Amino acid sequence: MTEAERTDAVTMEKIVSLCRRRGFVFPSSEIYGGLGSAYDYGHYGVLLKNNVKARWLEAMVQERDDIVALDSAIVLNPRVWEASGHVQSFTDPLVDCRTCKLRFRADHIDDPEHDEVRCGRKPSKRPGETPECDLTEPRQFNMMLQTRIGAVEQSGTEAYLRPETAQGIFVNFKNVSQLARRTPPFGIAQIGKSFRNEITPGNFLFRTREFEQMEMEYFVPPAEAEEWYRYWIDERLGWYTRYGIRPSHLRVREHDAEELSHYSSGTSDIEYLYPIGWSELEGIANRGDYDLTQHTQFSGTKLEWVGQDGERYVPHVIEPAGGVDRSLLAFLVDAYDEEVVAERDRTVLRLHPALAPVKAAVLPLISKDEAMVGKARGLYEELRRGFAVEYDDGGAIGRRYRRQDEIGTPYAFTIDEQTLEDDTVTIRDRDSLAQERLPIGGVRARLAELLSGAWTTPKPD
Amino acid sequence: MTEAERTDAVTMEKIVSLCRRRGFVFPSSEIYGGLGSAYDYGHYGVLLKNNVKARWLEAMVQERDDIVALDSAIVLNPRVWEASGHVQSFTDPLVDCRTCKLRFRADHIDDPEHDEVRCGRKPSKRPGETPECDLTEPRQFNMMLQTRIGAVEQSGTEAYLRPETAQGIFVNFKNVSQLARRTPPFGIAQIGKSFRNEITPGNFLFRTREFEQMEMEYFVPPAEAEEWYRYWIDERLGWYTRYGIRPSHLRVREHDAEELSHYSSGTSDIEYLYPIGWSELEGIANRGDYDLTQHTQFSGTKLEWVGQDGERYVPHVIEPAGGVDRSLLAFLVDAYDEEVVAERDRTVLRLHPALAPVKAAVLPLISKDEAMVGKARGLYEELRRGFAVEYDDGGAIGRRYRRQDEIGTPYAFTIDEQTLEDDTVTIRDRDSLAQERLPIGGVRARLAELLSGAWTTPKPD
Repeated sequence: MTEAERTDAVTMEKIVSLCRRRGFVFPSSEIYGGLGSAYDYGHYGVLLKNNVKARWLEAMVQERDDIVALDSAIVLNPRVWEASGHVQSFTDPLVDCRTCKLRFRADHIDDPEHDEVRCGRKPSKRPGETPECDLTEPRQFNMMLQTRIGAVEQSGTEAYLRPETAQGIFVNFKNVSQLARRTPPFGIAQIGKSFRNEITPGNFLFRTREFEQMEMEYFVPPAEAEEWYRYWIDERLGWYTRYGIRPSHLRVREHDAEELSHYSSGTSDIEYLYPIGWSELEGIANRGDYDLTQHTQFSGTKLEWVGQDGERYVPHVIEPAGGVDRSLLAFLVDAYDEEVVAERDRTVLRLHPALAPVKAAVLPLISKDEAMVGKARGLYEELRRGFAVEYDDGGAIGRRYRRQDEIGTPYAFTIDEQTLEDDTVTIRDRDSLAQERLPIGGVRARLAELLSGAWTTPKPD
Repeated sequence: MTEAERTDAVTMEKIVSLCRRRGFVFPSSEIYGGLGSAYDYGHYGVLLKNNVKARWLEAMVQERDDIVALDSAIVLNPRVWEASGHVQSFTDPLVDCRTCKLRFRADHIDDPEHDEVRCGRKPSKRPGETPECDLTEPRQFNMMLQTRIGAVEQSGTEAYLRPETAQGIFVNFKNVSQLARRTPPFGIAQIGKSFRNEITPGNFLFRTREFEQMEMEYFVPPAEAEEWYRYWIDERLGWYTRYGIRPSHLRVREHDAEELSHYSSGTSDIEYLYPIGWSELEGIANRGDYDLTQHTQFSGTKLEWVGQDGERYVPHVIEPAGGVDRSLLAFLVDAYDEEVVAERDRTVLRLHPALAPVKAAVLPLISKDEAMVGKARGLYEELRRGFAVEYDDGGAIGRRYRRQDEIGTPYAFTIDEQTLEDDTVTIRDRDSLAQERLPIGGVRARLAELLSGAWTTPKPD
């Protein structure tokens, strides 16, 4: 599929609309007119997001022997951000317009294709379209959000909301590595909120000031850094395709020298073909010994690995850093499908069952039929012990199926007249729409089998 | 057990020490001298915390038909906090000492028993002990952390880090209730970080400036508010005992009129007998129609329930608001036990299996025996698909058992000489220390059965 075809097929508007309609994602503080590009996750959004995070933690920690989990604070000692280079270098070059008072990223001004030069507040104004724009010289603008904590003395302590979870890992290197009883390579994985004062947030969940990261710092012998850098690019690509992203919608783009962050000796972006075009989904960086060396210098605590035989060195770090929200958006976009079935339009999320917010729906065909409702409630009570399932007796059965399709529920069990005669129910497959009958007593085992088995994407490449 | 006996039995120092020793919890930013009372969760802490949150969400959402999940942003439109009353009323009365420059809560100064009057930075100084203290008149100090977002104009927008997750629920009331297709009573549940600029944080995880909440807002017909208030006190008590807290370590304390928050017409604390004495574990508040009415007034959007028959009213709200960190601390304290077994000291966390970070350990008796290691690895690989299990071949078997006891692993499977002969392994029970043999092929099913079955606390009341 070409980029143009992709953009044509699934628009961001359709995704935003589905998310709103089915309660995945709402604009935050909407009754107060919102707050820039901030979003709240509704019921199905929470379930989907929790599944994305659980699958990541599973792949990083539970399925491996060499990575442990961490959850560090959002507000760290401010010295951390001096050592990391963020106070000095985590900046964007900005220009202000003296006429319209808007602010732009200086490095985006000359890029007429780039939507991000539009100010979020007044999208109709744009440099080049507004001849009266009178721009200042570029100035560096730090993207960390600041706050003040403590109550000793009037001023308190200036502090930052972390712009990345990674530094919370580095400053715990000594604590964790002493306990982990492991020789490099080994890693520390963390999921949590980060904050960046983005000048130009936008594109729905793609760029927001408050966002959630899934970062893992992998500490390796210096000579093996390049090898592990390649390894983690492959691993992370594999994670996305394992959970249903089409390989043709993923590509790896290596940063050129000018793009590299201040800490990085090599970075590759895994890009996804979003409706806005190819954009960063996850970055894999070779951070070298930058961070451990900086924190050693600033804290006075030696952050190095010491072997039992006295061997010692500063490990190099390979970092796969993904975004929870960006992943979720990619999974939604890739799962989104519209088709005509029996002359009716159908929108369906072909989500991997391990990501689907609801694993199965239990539906009595006729919601006023007490016997059917009784059977359906019984099955529902049995399944909900252990599975995220939903009971729905509201409206015509076709409408209920479509609602489940739109939230990506892979299976539906329907209780009908025949159930009352022979205790069989139908199982409906979200993707193929195939229906077959099975004994009601075998539903739980069948569902467990379907959810634990291999899943083949039904999506055309 | 009396409060005095409790304080004697399990000290906070023992809990802090175990958490540090086994990597549950570290002081945050430790290599930089920490940051007040901030903590980072290590590997087992993350797993335990995730289990606490999962059990809460299960009890609130998956096991019920009347509650949906939400995950709103930490930084909301600042008008939210004007409407909620937090800008005006979320304050502590503070006094400063002109001599020592320390700041204290005015309402704690006269309470000589109360540890919280100690300043976190200089615990040796204390009003009353320092005759030179020269106190100012009390002033109101707002406990919300402030920040500034956006880049249009120099100033940006003043904003707050939420001091409670609840308001994110209220401002989404209309969005969620339209989609949830439910008649009150129904609820919205949320887990997430909140921030309060506590003057006197302390007592380990009990009071920190950055903490995680589990809050649920339950919207009910006004006439039923009192009934549901009582219902939720019982429900929440039941959740703590279901996961292993001894009933004798829990009590309900109703706030008197002076204590009530500005929004509340009735609040009860579920208190736990921490090593520091009876202290709040969770609050259940009857918030009346305060929040929906305030947001209706400030936003101009009517937040009310409208029935299909045209009936309309502003629901009243019952709020069970628990702390993730406080719950985790209570579960740890209640599980902590020391005993002498075969003339050796043993520390054991008698955690409920559904909370335990690791469900089972797989241990080859002799770690240099390749055949045993091979069998053990094989079993480990089988179990880790679906269960949080750990493989350990480091050190003497007794030491490995003690390590698993200290992190609360309920079961251990040991591969020994006999395994090589008849393919049986031993299962060791953490609490009773009973060991029995079972076929290696039956381990997975046995573990699943043990984890899904009822669990009886082995803890003396």
